[in-house]
Amino acid sequence: MTRCSSAPCSCIAKLDDSVAFDFDDFPWGCEYYLRTGKMMADDGIEQLRAFDAIYRGAVGAPSVPDHISLWGLLLKIRKEFDEYVNVRPVKLLEGAHGVITPLKNVGRGDIDMTVIRENSEGEYAGAGAWLYKGKPHETVLQTGVFSRVGTERIIRYAYDLARAQGKTLTSVSKGNALNYSMVFWDGVFEEVGREYPDVETHSLLVDAAAMNFVMHPARFQVVVTSNLFGDILTDLGAAIVGGMGLAAGANLNPEKKYPSMFEPIHGSAPDIAGRGIANPLASIWSVSQMLDFLGLPAWGAAVIQAIETVVRGPVLTVDMGGTASTSEVGDELARVLVAPND
Amino acid sequence: MTRCSSAPCSCIAKLDDSVAFDFDDFPWGCEYYLRTGKMMADDGIEQLRAFDAIYRGAVGAPSVPDHISLWGLLLKIRKEFDEYVNVRPVKLLEGAHGVITPLKNVGRGDIDMTVIRENSEGEYAGAGAWLYKGKPHETVLQTGVFSRVGTERIIRYAYDLARAQGKTLTSVSKGNALNYSMVFWDGVFEEVGREYPDVETHSLLVDAAAMNFVMHPARFQVVVTSNLFGDILTDLGAAIVGGMGLAAGANLNPEKKYPSMFEPIHGSAPDIAGRGIANPLASIWSVSQMLDFLGLPAWGAAVIQAIETVVRGPVLTVDMGGTASTSEVGDELARVLVAPND
Ligand SMILES: CC(C)[C@H](C(=O)O)[C@@H](O)C(=O)O
Ligand SMILES: CC(C)[C@H](C(=O)O)[C@@H](O)C(=O)O
Repeated sequence: MTRCSSAPCSCIAKLDDSVAFDFDDFPWGCEYYLRTGKMMADDGIEQLRAFDAIYRGAVGAPSVPDHISLWGLLLKIRKEFDEYVNVRPVKLLEGAHGVITPLKNVGRGDIDMTVIRENSEGEYAGAGAWLYKGKPHETVLQTGVFSRVGTERIIRYAYDLARAQGKTLTSVSKGNALNYSMVFWDGVFEEVGREYPDVETHSLLVDAAAMNFVMHPARFQVVVTSNLFGDILTDLGAAIVGGMGLAAGANLNPEKKYPSMFEPIHGSAPDIAGRGIANPLASIWSVSQMLDFLGLPAWGAAVIQAIETVVRGPVLTVDMGGTASTSEVGDELARVLVAPND
Repeated sequence: MTRCSSAPCSCIAKLDDSVAFDFDDFPWGCEYYLRTGKMMADDGIEQLRAFDAIYRGAVGAPSVPDHISLWGLLLKIRKEFDEYVNVRPVKLLEGAHGVITPLKNVGRGDIDMTVIRENSEGEYAGAGAWLYKGKPHETVLQTGVFSRVGTERIIRYAYDLARAQGKTLTSVSKGNALNYSMVFWDGVFEEVGREYPDVETHSLLVDAAAMNFVMHPARFQVVVTSNLFGDILTDLGAAIVGGMGLAAGANLNPEKKYPSMFEPIHGSAPDIAGRGIANPLASIWSVSQMLDFLGLPAWGAAVIQAIETVVRGPVLTVDMGGTASTSEVGDELARVLVAPND
């Protein structure tokens, strides 16, 4: 029995025949904040600790400053549970009218990468200072913190993945300008690489990487990068495979000492909230990652397969050119989902 | 008489009929480094100080670590001469077969933005520490430094430009994660904005901005952002208008207390160096920015006009689908350049 926080989506519910899940739902987020002044219960982290996985919906509201809503929930969970690996697939799907991408000259199979983003420290350490507020010499410092442990473990994770999948590994950094952190990063990438002579590696500056995501996306297979760069590149990655409606992410504590978290990478889209028209596919894609992580890769693959079937059909939300509601897309997905024979 | 460092390119040489320039050439860069152990002469900054403008060629070589070649020349000049404004145009041109872009659904006139990048501090302050080297608790810190002066002046520059051109202004930041620097940035953007009620503003997270450069580039007019984000977004900007071959940048000290510097934003392309096939158009585009800045906007416009003529024709370098050499493209540009009647 696997315990997951958050209510099941339709596709997980269907799994219940063959695999047992035990769900719990926590109403934490911006509405909760507006009522209580907190983004989650005081002992929220303690409550979540007992679960195998956290299935997180999009968080955010115009009336709550982002740095409050995120440091009180999303970023707090990532850090408290040492979910130091953020895995974000960037994969071209095929719709009714060809591959789904805003790019010319990209064909079937041309984009299929996995971005491994450092998820626990670096630029997101939250360290800094705000000096001389309101004075002419006001100065604000934001410090990225790159530890040996933190840098080595994410790079090692990426090498392991590249090796296991027989893929190339590209490290994205910025050693020419960030003269401490990224010079260190590059050094660790090279050093760890000596243990993986079988893995073909590339090292790119983040600016060049951003350009190549658009100009030569087929060059990337496994990509490893820092917290901030991973944030930027995965949104860009989402853009080149058709937008946020399909972009999912897993926040992993690979040692399973703490629960891992699965989420769409998009925000709460306040402009359309409550209208029942949001695209559920990114959230559902993250379910597939959750199933993989929980040791059910055949089910994970079945969910991806079902997503691929749905995007070829007419039952799509408006962002994908359809007219269906969120729940119609969910139902359609549940309908086409084929249980693996295992 | 205007004094510029670096040798004239063909199009500036042609100006000599009506406008007098006085050029000097400094052979600083990686070859110089390999001979002398320095990227520029010891008194290089002093030597450059007397000039009105610096016309910089691409710098970098595989045998010199980037952080050396850049902190010893490019980044040093930007900082020493307080070239705190980096102006990078991102403009769609029309080639023989339509607009030059890897994006579908982008038509004539759809991309025409100016990115104003902070160029003197922020993430590029060079501040940090490398602690406990080689120990298990090794920790590397990289500190972004955002001063009131530095943040306000770049934001003000962008507001002034947006106002002068009747354009919208988009600030790109990341306040939800960079909880000191970018919260400060957002505050200054709002505060300064009160003096510009006539300028329509937008504020975007850097990840969303990267996505929108690909999905909705027409939404951007004037963009203002930090040093690092500007670096990433302008390479991405170059990508959506056809690549590095056309991407130019001006590093301005608007008060003209120190010389300003004009450059292609691409690197030295060591893979093709010395073969005479590099695309000179980015370098030439930066000449247009130099002419604007030196008070010759009609000449600046004439150079852009000539670039637009060249890209429609067959005399192009290989990256733009042609077979011409660097100097053939330069000659072609000089040939089609029409002197303004002023
Ligand atoms: C919401 C925000 C703090 C978050 C991030 O920057 O990590 C998001 O953009 C993401 O990519 O998961
Ligand atoms: C070469 C490098 C240091 C530089 C930068 O990051 O500023 C370049 O990428 C640029 O954009 O001008």
